[in-house]
Amino acid sequence: MATSNGAAANGHGLNIALGRYLWERIHQVGVNHIFGVPGDFNLTLLDHIYNVDGLDWVGNTNELNAAYAADGYARVKNGAGCLVTTHGVGELSALNGIAGAMTEQVKVIHVVGQTSLKMQQNRMMIHHSIGFSPDHQMFNKAAKDFRVAAAEIQTAEGAAEEIDRVLRECFVKSGPVCIFVPIDLVDQQVPAKALEMPLDLKPEADENAVRDAARKILETLASSKSPALFVDCLVQRHQAVEEARKLVDVLGLPTYTSNMGKTIIDETHENYVDLYNGGPSRPGIEDVFAKHDFVLVLGTLPSDTNSGGFTRKLPTNAAYVNTHDVSMPGWKTTSKVPLKATIASLTSLAPSYTITQTKNPRHTLPERPLEDDRDSELITQSWIWHRLASFMQPHDVVYGETGTAAFGLPDAQFPANTTWITQTYYGSIGYATPSAFGADLALADLAATKGAPRGRTLLVTGDGSLMLTVQEVGNMVKQNLCPIIFLINNAGYTIERVIHGARQSYNDIVPFNYKHMLPFFNMPEAEAQKCFHRAETKAELEEVLKKESVVKPSKVQVVEIVMDMLDVPWRLSSQIATRGPEAVKEMKEAGFKVREMQKGGDSGGFWN
Amino acid sequence: MATSNGAAANGHGLNIALGRYLWERIHQVGVNHIFGVPGDFNLTLLDHIYNVDGLDWVGNTNELNAAYAADGYARVKNGAGCLVTTHGVGELSALNGIAGAMTEQVKVIHVVGQTSLKMQQNRMMIHHSIGFSPDHQMFNKAAKDFRVAAAEIQTAEGAAEEIDRVLRECFVKSGPVCIFVPIDLVDQQVPAKALEMPLDLKPEADENAVRDAARKILETLASSKSPALFVDCLVQRHQAVEEARKLVDVLGLPTYTSNMGKTIIDETHENYVDLYNGGPSRPGIEDVFAKHDFVLVLGTLPSDTNSGGFTRKLPTNAAYVNTHDVSMPGWKTTSKVPLKATIASLTSLAPSYTITQTKNPRHTLPERPLEDDRDSELITQSWIWHRLASFMQPHDVVYGETGTAAFGLPDAQFPANTTWITQTYYGSIGYATPSAFGADLALADLAATKGAPRGRTLLVTGDGSLMLTVQEVGNMVKQNLCPIIFLINNAGYTIERVIHGARQSYNDIVPFNYKHMLPFFNMPEAEAQKCFHRAETKAELEEVLKKESVVKPSKVQVVEIVMDMLDVPWRLSSQIATRGPEAVKEMKEAGFKVREMQKGGDSGGFWN
Repeated sequence: MATSNGAAANGHGLNIALGRYLWERIHQVGVNHIFGVPGDFNLTLLDHIYNVDGLDWVGNTNELNAAYAADGYARVKNGAGCLVTTHGVGELSALNGIAGAMTEQVKVIHVVGQTSLKMQQNRMMIHHSIGFSPDHQMFNKAAKDFRVAAAEIQTAEGAAEEIDRVLRECFVKSGPVCIFVPIDLVDQQVPAKALEMPLDLKPEADENAVRDAARKILETLASSKSPALFVDCLVQRHQAVEEARKLVDVLGLPTYTSNMGKTIIDETHENYVDLYNGGPSRPGIEDVFAKHDFVLVLGTLPSDTNSGGFTRKLPTNAAYVNTHDVSMPGWKTTSKVPLKATIASLTSLAPSYTITQTKNPRHTLPERPLEDDRDSELITQSWIWHRLASFMQPHDVVYGETGTAAFGLPDAQFPANTTWITQTYYGSIGYATPSAFGADLALADLAATKGAPRGRTLLVTGDGSLMLTVQEVGNMVKQNLCPIIFLINNAGYTIERVIHGARQSYNDIVPFNYKHMLPFFNMPEAEAQKCFHRAETKAELEEVLKKESVVKPSKVQVVEIVMDMLDVPWRLSSQIATRGPEAVKEMKEAGFKVREMQKGGDSGGFWN
Repeated sequence: MATSNGAAANGHGLNIALGRYLWERIHQVGVNHIFGVPGDFNLTLLDHIYNVDGLDWVGNTNELNAAYAADGYARVKNGAGCLVTTHGVGELSALNGIAGAMTEQVKVIHVVGQTSLKMQQNRMMIHHSIGFSPDHQMFNKAAKDFRVAAAEIQTAEGAAEEIDRVLRECFVKSGPVCIFVPIDLVDQQVPAKALEMPLDLKPEADENAVRDAARKILETLASSKSPALFVDCLVQRHQAVEEARKLVDVLGLPTYTSNMGKTIIDETHENYVDLYNGGPSRPGIEDVFAKHDFVLVLGTLPSDTNSGGFTRKLPTNAAYVNTHDVSMPGWKTTSKVPLKATIASLTSLAPSYTITQTKNPRHTLPERPLEDDRDSELITQSWIWHRLASFMQPHDVVYGETGTAAFGLPDAQFPANTTWITQTYYGSIGYATPSAFGADLALADLAATKGAPRGRTLLVTGDGSLMLTVQEVGNMVKQNLCPIIFLINNAGYTIERVIHGARQSYNDIVPFNYKHMLPFFNMPEAEAQKCFHRAETKAELEEVLKKESVVKPSKVQVVEIVMDMLDVPWRLSSQIATRGPEAVKEMKEAGFKVREMQKGGDSGGFWN
């Protein structure tokens, strides 16, 4: 196969197999590993992966996990991730992971090996289909709202252009795309010429409109007495982290973020204040934030979970730099004003304006409240997150799985140059484990291909979430990766207990005995014994966190951390409290600690 | 909660909470266990389960597994299974399992806890949603082709009637239904009165049309010289197994089945011949089948995998008793001629007709070919399936997961009163393990509530398929179930290897060390050691199959069976051969044994 199709890409022949074209292009946009699960309708397509230098197949333990892995890979590579599935069963199994990428604006390329055109046209009862006269496109159609673009290839003619179009859309819109390849088209020839020219992945920008928007924002900034900056997660998705960091340096304004935007701006930066989530914020934050008369908001995604249950209050005259436009009260640009270009323009034009820089109010904030359980020898929610943060190092990628970790870790200040990953808007439990697999592979890849420092992946998850997708830990072992899995064992779905049914059996889970996890996933027993750690007390955890094998892992490390099932971080109970008085009453009756709500929490709640 | 809503069902109050009504009805139609995963938007709905006598919550390890478990439970209960998921993430994760139930016509009730009406109407950015102005019904809409009916409840008024309507549709059409319950409607009151009257679950029947159809079939039968009966899987789905068995007794005709229809008619019955799959049939079957001048076909589902790759040849004048009509050449009834009623009518009217009963040709079939590897001490595909069949007992439920098991086990004759379960049309690998969990729970339930014999569940799966959904084994341990898991360890996706890429790395899997599986899933170590068995040779397997703890299991048993990665059952290679000459060539080049195709295989193939 390599001989007939192998001429393209470098020293291209005139034509190239469609399957080869696809993988060459996907590799060109920065993907070095292909996730997925093989199936009848993608096997010959997978063959072509092996012909592309620098591109490797990495199978997953199931399709949902493959989608999550591609998502994590994309986030860490600051580009795209890719998975392949097969007609029907495969594409549908992956769909929840694709939907998560849609919600969170992550660049995931989903390649689907479809039945042949003849099978489709004759509505043949091929396995993985539905009914007596099956529409083979039923699965494609079901997924149409869960992607930003799709190449529904039905002929080799124009197929290359379609692939190019959707790969561009994946980057421009930052979200999942689908590419459907009927099995009989895989080896058909398409022109190779386009491969000589890398794809333009930048969103279309109206330079004048970008500059005008930047000037308008800067003028307003210059006329404000106490302006501030609010940086959220879409800055990362739209590849503007470096631009945003420069802007923070240039403007010198107090800078806030959200649960999802954490670490985009280094938390050790002199201008960085804290998370601002309305009611569920650190004491004092609401007051200092309320003093800003103008806020420049970059790339916000204000879901309930990322906005303190909609209690975050921004000044009415805030300026929003959105992904493809800028808006201010009574004013909005066209859609040709992309976030990255706008932030860059703000940075370059800012020196021409005199902007009032108020002092970072961080040091005026009240001391953190002393928790009642501060002297406990057991591991508590009030202690663990700050302790884990002090374990972190620059270049670490830190996952906070939906659960207590996603709401606990944001309370701790992370070191500079760490990357925080959480799926806070979509919030699909089970996401973090396979995603961390993809992330650690991306870190290894970046170290190997870009000379980047080999950061560590810290997966902080709970026993409930781990259960859903646990088999991907086996892939970490197989691929010789070395994430550190901090596993909160608190006997069930604690995040659900604090919402409702604290002691109901539906919030119990299927218990695992984690000591046997790595041996089950095929790590040799003697080695596995060294890689498993368990702590019931703070002292025990301190011992674990000192171990050289944990600090500098060369194999997967599992650290089981035993905690009380009704202990929750204050940021989580405060978040639930924003639902309304009934939620507060229920938490208190069940015995949960709930901090007195601050101002933002007085709005009556959004739940009912 | 039990006090305010508990008055209904028996000695009903006037009104009842909608949530309670739902569960009472679901329990009334024969469901005693509710599968699923809790989430924010279904917790209060789950509370009502605990108020229904005889109904129990059984959480799963993830939503896909819950859907599969409900499917297996439904098949074994000969009724419905039910799962609950939460808005967005949950409903979408389950979708591939629901689609499988759609393809295979299994009665699965999917209850989804939705966001509140206010959240939906205001398109609030609630977690698990997508976009800045999310349509909360997006997930519901995506699933619309994967169910036979849905109750999209948006008000308490009429909600009870909607629930009743879709539960009826679940049985009448035999397929999955969805019931969407916005969280703020769970505790709203609905009239309880309807609960006094059990739902009518029978499909509408035009009695005259049914009788006319039966007579027309019987007349044709009476005028035929060598008629036969072909019984397929939809007979089971439409709850007509008993009727079909009586018909076989009454007609006394040679009776054939398909891969999916196996065990509907006892294979030890004097009238039963064998599977007839066209080309991939036992030698001689094509010839004896071709002699029948008329065939009565009951409930067929002729997918490629269930029809020998479309090579099964039925006489042009065959009569088809379909799920809701009957058709013969040039003649078709209305859709008010249900399968179960038609078969019953055939049985009752048959004695008035003189039907030619030819001798069962089974004993005229050639001897099974002797396999080259018959003297191997190692465990071979040509040996294992017949050996496992001799381990079976009446009342066993036997799973053949998609893979070598699904195509290997059909070669062996099963004892009377066994139930064969396979997902041969949809063919989603990973299905069998959680489905077997649901099946074993159903067997325990039938024994406890109906005094049925406690049959055993034999899950025969492969290392590839097990990987996708392995965590549900933990639920078997948690629920004290005792299936016997026969795990074919042949180092990867052998069913894909025989299709394409025999030695490509994409057909490798993430390896597990099965010795550690039960301990990981929380079985005490000493016990787990006794429940794990491993065989590399026939002699070793013989020892295992003699053990009392395996024969009469009281805990989950795991039997790892090591086999060669390029060994496949002849029925599988013959099935692949129906794809065409290229497939045969590729198999032979890769070193697979392929039987000479019989007549049906000469058609040139359906693949390209």
